[in-house]
Formats: sequence, structure tokens, C-alpha cells
Amino acid sequence: MHEGYACHALSVDYGQRHVAELSAAARLAAALGAREHRIARLDASIFQGSALTDAAVAVPLDGGPAGIPVTYVPARNTILLSLALGWAEVLDAQQLFIGANAVDYSGYPDCRPGYLRAFEAMANLATKAALEGRRIAVRAPLIDLPKAEIVRRALALGVDPAMTVSCYQADDEGRACGRCDACRIRRAGFETAGIADTTRYREAR
Amino acid sequence: MHEGYACHALSVDYGQRHVAELSAAARLAAALGAREHRIARLDASIFQGSALTDAAVAVPLDGGPAGIPVTYVPARNTILLSLALGWAEVLDAQQLFIGANAVDYSGYPDCRPGYLRAFEAMANLATKAALEGRRIAVRAPLIDLPKAEIVRRALALGVDPAMTVSCYQADDEGRACGRCDACRIRRAGFETAGIADTTRYREAR
Repeated sequence: MHEGYACHALSVDYGQRHVAELSAAARLAAALGAREHRIARLDASIFQGSALTDAAVAVPLDGGPAGIPVTYVPARNTILLSLALGWAEVLDAQQLFIGANAVDYSGYPDCRPGYLRAFEAMANLATKAALEGRRIAVRAPLIDLPKAEIVRRALALGVDPAMTVSCYQADDEGRACGRCDACRIRRAGFETAGIADTTRYREAR
Repeated sequence: MHEGYACHALSVDYGQRHVAELSAAARLAAALGAREHRIARLDASIFQGSALTDAAVAVPLDGGPAGIPVTYVPARNTILLSLALGWAEVLDAQQLFIGANAVDYSGYPDCRPGYLRAFEAMANLATKAALEGRRIAVRAPLIDLPKAEIVRRALALGVDPAMTVSCYQADDEGRACGRCDACRIRRAGFETAGIADTTRYREAR
């Protein structure tokens, strides 16, 4: 929004364990002045085997094995961006923003800049707008920022970190476990930035 | 399946008017020996303004204006293929088939071969399988066939056209209106092929 766009925010309820991120997104969108916030609901039965959606698979705590983590959700960013692309066509929007970050999360193929460029190229062949000459840009302003810089940027833009949810198994109030990969990397970001971590944890640490 | 693949069939319930295509797909998948058939459900509230999903927009009958038809659904094939890509990763499948056809439906940007190639390129950057060297192919065997040839091909492969639904406003029993673009183009395919049209219409013609 600080670039002057009217912001239409989209969240997707795909059966994620950390459903608290949806209400957090709604609160943040309202607090930051988004034009609207919508939640698209997707039956998650075709997503099996990810720790983020399958209750039978545990979220790794205190650091897991190397490689692609079990919290990887098949084709998630492709599905999220595709839904956003559909809505963008309805709105006649030409800038799609996604919060993907490539630095700390090695191992997620769909967080890489090359992937996002390929999605953008596809999007510009997919849409009525593109046929009519209105190009769509896929923007990931956080893609190459270290977490410490993301923390600084959030504070500079007036985003209260305590309102955000990163934890893979946040409780219904959005309180973080403090131990999953998302929590560990986020906490390290605050530490590196030298900024007090205002994240709401389930237990005092 | 005639190429030797185990077929896992996916339909998407995105609030389409012609919901009869979902039960038709289930019956066909069973009749033709698919390993399984699933229906993914997607909240369609972000799709507005298409005659296929918005009850306030009429399906054009007896031929509509030139250009992109109002039955175009924003980013539909991108969303369908993205969901299929997610399921393909779960199944470790490497061939994605879609029934897109570019010949008769000029005007749908996401039915063009160039679009499908761009989706395939994106898919091969998006997935864990691709990172591990297992390429995904997006196949559209009907893409450049005239409708008459599709009718012939269906009969040769043992598909009963009476079991299929093309109509944009088929009734709950899957009976066709005979007047929308999909019906008109389909009927012309039977006529060109010189094959009796076994489509079930709502009224005798």
C-alpha cells in the first residue's frame, strides 16, 4: 500500500493446521487499510502427507533433517497464486504480491525467484487481460530479504509483529509454539535485528 | 489409459452452473476403469462475472458476440491445473492430462498450446519432484483436434457421448440445452463426422 496501490487481500483456507493465520490476516488487513480481505476455501483432501495439513504427520520441532521439509505442501504457492490470478482478473488488477521468502527457507521449490518468474510468464499467457495487452506482474518484495530485515521493514511500515502468525502450529488465539522451524527462524530474525521479540508465545520463554 | 497409465481423475466443483458435469465425470471415470475419481471443492466467491458461475449473467444462446465469451472463467485452467499439479505431486505422477481444445474455442486464452507450455515450464520449477529431477509433462491430447475428430476418437476409445456433458447449462440429469455455444459446437462436430448425435437434449429437436 505504501506504493500507492489499493490492496485487495486474499487468504486461502486449505485446511492448514495453523488456521489462526487466517484471522490474523483479516485483522492485519483491516488495521493496515486494505480495501478488502477475502478467504477462499479449498477442500484439502487432495493435499495429503504434509505436516501442515495432515494431522497424522507431526510438525518437526527443534530443527529437522536437511532437504525439503515435511511441512512442504504440494504445489501450494502455485495454487495460491492461481486463485489470486483469477481474482486479479475480476478486479482488473495488474500487480500480484506474495510474501514468499527464499533466503531462510531453502528447500521450498516454489519460493525461488526463478519459479515466480515462470509463474508470471504463464500468467501473461493465461488471462483475458494479457490477451488485451495488460501485463500482470508477480511481485515478491520479501523474496531475498533476511528475516532480520523483514522484521525491520515490518516495524517501519507500521506492522505490529504481535499481530502476525508464522508458527506452523499456532493455537486458535494465534500464539506460537516457539519450537517449529517457522518459529525458530522468526525468533532468530528478531535477535539478529536487535529488536525485542513481541511474538505471543504459548508459554513464557 | 490406452497409453498404459493408471488414471487418477480430478474434477473441480467451483460453483459451475453445469454441475452435472461432475457426476458425468464420476460415471465416466468408473465406466472407463480410472483408478479413482476425486472432486476438489473450491469456494467460488472470488469468481464473479462469468456466465458459468454467476447466476446474474446469462449464458449466450444461438451464437453470441465475437471476442472472449462471457462464459470465460478467470484463470480457470490455471487453477484446475494447479490443483492437479498438487495432486500429481502427492501421487508422484508425471503426466498431467487436460481436455483443453484450442480449435473451436478461439477466445479462451488458457486453451492455447503456448499457455500450456508455459504452465509446464512453471510446474517444472514449482515442485519437489522437479527439484529431484522427475519432470512433469502437461498433455492436452485434444488441443488441436476439430470437434468431429474428437467425436470419432471418443467412439474409437469406447467413450459413450451420451454419458458426457458439454452444455454450459445442462440440467441436473445432464441433459443439454442444445443452444449454448458448447452445444452448438458439439452438435456441429457430430454432423461433420457423419455420426448420429446421441447427446441427451432436454427437448426433442
